[in-house]
Amino acid sequence: MTEPGLPEIRIRLPDWVASAVDWDRVYSVVADRMRLAIQLARANVEHATGGPFGAAVFELDTGRLVAVGVNLVTRDQNSTLHAEMVALMLAERRLGHYSLASPDGPAHELVTSCDPCAMCLGGALWSGVRRIVAGAGRVEARRVGFDEGPVFPESYQYLRDRGVESVRGVLGAEATAVLELYRERGGEIYNG
Amino acid sequence: MTEPGLPEIRIRLPDWVASAVDWDRVYSVVADRMRLAIQLARANVEHATGGPFGAAVFELDTGRLVAVGVNLVTRDQNSTLHAEMVALMLAERRLGHYSLASPDGPAHELVTSCDPCAMCLGGALWSGVRRIVAGAGRVEARRVGFDEGPVFPESYQYLRDRGVESVRGVLGAEATAVLELYRERGGEIYNG
Repeated sequence: MTEPGLPEIRIRLPDWVASAVDWDRVYSVVADRMRLAIQLARANVEHATGGPFGAAVFELDTGRLVAVGVNLVTRDQNSTLHAEMVALMLAERRLGHYSLASPDGPAHELVTSCDPCAMCLGGALWSGVRRIVAGAGRVEARRVGFDEGPVFPESYQYLRDRGVESVRGVLGAEATAVLELYRERGGEIYNG
Repeated sequence: MTEPGLPEIRIRLPDWVASAVDWDRVYSVVADRMRLAIQLARANVEHATGGPFGAAVFELDTGRLVAVGVNLVTRDQNSTLHAEMVALMLAERRLGHYSLASPDGPAHELVTSCDPCAMCLGGALWSGVRRIVAGAGRVEARRVGFDEGPVFPESYQYLRDRGVESVRGVLGAEATAVLELYRERGGEIYNG
């Protein structure tokens, strides 16, 4: 840490993501957006590049895909790299701004294969997305062994009061199946 | 995003940090650890490299410094780069593991110049630190314009139930002075 200067953290999506995502496609329906998040989660398990979670940022109205993320905690040995955080960072990078809420630009939404944990719910608020869409629930994540942290009904209300809507349980069964696949494969539980 | 492959996010502390931190010093007293976090926060304002927040990760018992962080939201156009998140990522990088809680290794603590927001509180839980020490309070941050997100008394209780203690208000006045310095200088409020 001392001698060669301060270290640099580099965050990069796995190579398989490039061929797994069609950037030109328009995801007009919410279910299609969720299908992409779940597909990323499943591929992340199959490629063993991280936990069973995928996420994507879209333009809320047009369904244009802005960025995707997968969980990279175990691969990168970095507990902050949940799928949502990776997707939000990459979306902000693409827009060149720390906020996805511009008065002149389109509104954005975060679509995630599982209810966001406390860190990611906070992160979503700071990112300026206007809607959060989640697949599998907190209970299902818990059943596989993943804690979701201090998230309460008041947490969602807090976001709602600041203009961030949440839609949960979209394609919940399909999303939960990926969590179970991870468990069956003996995937590492990093926040139990 | 499409053509040149997926982008890479690079996170690096400002160059001034190298000469601002004495890595060989042992911070045996909590107040000394907090003084470092506040000093980093102040220097971050003076160098205009981000928001008025600093953090550090220490070995809980020995006071050995493991990693430091400053807020890089505006510099990097990345809303997730709060001082705590940066310090935790760098500490995990240094240890080579996504958890700072090893049964064989020393316990760690996160010292931050201001109460952690919802994202950072969740992030601290996943990092495996055993104690969080904070300077300025949520109310003081709010007064300068920074929202702290959905953090409730139950949030701290949730962490306590999982073995993460919190000590708040350590050198609160000194830490709050940095928030006020930022406001006086017309610093950008990125999550208001």
